[in-house]
Amino acid sequence: MTKIPTSTLKRLPQYLEVLKQLKRAGLREVSTTKITVFADIHQTLVRKDLSFTGVIGNPKTGYNINELIDAIETCLNWNDTSPCYLVGVGHLGSALLGYQEFAQKGLSIVAGFDTDAALIGNVIHGTPVYSALDFGAMAKHHKIEIGIITVPPESSQLIADIMIHSGIKAIWNFTPQKIIVPPGIIVEYVDMFASLAVLSRRLAETNL
Amino acid sequence: MTKIPTSTLKRLPQYLEVLKQLKRAGLREVSTTKITVFADIHQTLVRKDLSFTGVIGNPKTGYNINELIDAIETCLNWNDTSPCYLVGVGHLGSALLGYQEFAQKGLSIVAGFDTDAALIGNVIHGTPVYSALDFGAMAKHHKIEIGIITVPPESSQLIADIMIHSGIKAIWNFTPQKIIVPPGIIVEYVDMFASLAVLSRRLAETNL
Repeated sequence: MTKIPTSTLKRLPQYLEVLKQLKRAGLREVSTTKITVFADIHQTLVRKDLSFTGVIGNPKTGYNINELIDAIETCLNWNDTSPCYLVGVGHLGSALLGYQEFAQKGLSIVAGFDTDAALIGNVIHGTPVYSALDFGAMAKHHKIEIGIITVPPESSQLIADIMIHSGIKAIWNFTPQKIIVPPGIIVEYVDMFASLAVLSRRLAETNL
Repeated sequence: MTKIPTSTLKRLPQYLEVLKQLKRAGLREVSTTKITVFADIHQTLVRKDLSFTGVIGNPKTGYNINELIDAIETCLNWNDTSPCYLVGVGHLGSALLGYQEFAQKGLSIVAGFDTDAALIGNVIHGTPVYSALDFGAMAKHHKIEIGIITVPPESSQLIADIMIHSGIKAIWNFTPQKIIVPPGIIVEYVDMFASLAVLSRRLAETNL
C-alpha cells in the first residue's frame, strides 16, 4: 500500500465534497480545471493529489465523477465502516455521537464512555453510554481499533494510555492537549483552538 | 500591532494549556525546557514563539506562569470577550452553543440561527435560536464581527455571503467546503475530515 503524503490526504476530503456537489448538480464528468476552481487549490497540486487515486482522466472529458469518488473513498478507507469508541460524553462528545456525516466517512461510533453516573446507561442519539471502567474489557473483546477523545484536556493523556493498553491503534484527539504515545500508534488532532487563535488574532490586528 | 506568524498562533493555545496545568499543579515559574517537554515542541520554536508575547524569562527561574498566561491571552485577544453568531443549529452547532471552553477563549456565542421552524424560538444550552432570515438585521444592529458556520457544506458559501453582507469580518467555518470571500475578510476552518482522512489512511496502511 503506497504511503500517501499527509498534505494530499488532508485535501482529498475537499475534492470529495466538490465531486459530490457536481454529481448532485447532474454532472458525470469533470475536468481538472473545474475541480481546481471549486476546490480553490492550484491545478498542479490537484493533478498530483488525484494521481494517488490511480484514476486516469480522459484528456477530452476529464475524470468520471463516480469513479473518482469511489477511488478517493477507497484511498481513505471510507468505503469500509470501522467501529470506534468515544470517551467523554460532554457537549462535544454527545454531538459527535449524533453526527451523521461520519457514516459516509467510514466511521461508526458504536459506544460512548464516561465517568459521570448520570450519563452511564443512557442512549444518546442512538448510541449507548457505558462506564469508563468498562472501556478496556469491551474494546479488547470487540477488537476496537479507533478511539475518540473528547474529555477535558487534562485527562486526555490518561485516556490515551487506557486506550492503547486496550488495543486501540488510532486515536482521534479533540482536545488541544498533546498526547505521548508509543511508536506505531496513530494520533490525529482536531484542534479547534489553533484555528480560533488565528481567527481572534487576525481580527484584532484588523481592528487596531 | 505586530503580525504574529500563523504557525506561532496555532501553537500558542498549546502553551496556554500546558501553563494552566502547571499552574493547577502549584507551580509559579517554568523553564523553557519544561514547556518544551510538556508541549512536545522543539526548544528553538518554543523560544521563538514565546518571544512574540513580549514576556522575558528570568535566566535562572524561567517565566512567571501567570504573566505568561496573561501575555498569551492578550496576544490572542482572548482576554476580551467577542460576541458572535452561529448559523446551523444541528448536532454540531448545538454542541458548540453549549461548549463552555469558548468562554475562556474570548468567544461568546450570543445567538444561533437556523431555517428549521422546529428549532426557531428554542433556547439551546442557554442560547436563543432565531430564524436565519433575521441574521442580517440582527448582526448589523449588534455590530457582530464573528460568524460561525455549522450548516451542511453545500450551504456554506451562501451563508458566508449573507454574513459578509451583514458586516461579519471573521468567519469560523466548520464545514469542509472552501468558501470564497473578498479581501480583508478572515476565514478559518476547523476541518475535522482532513484529520479523519489522515487517521483512516494511516490505520489502513498499518493493517495491510
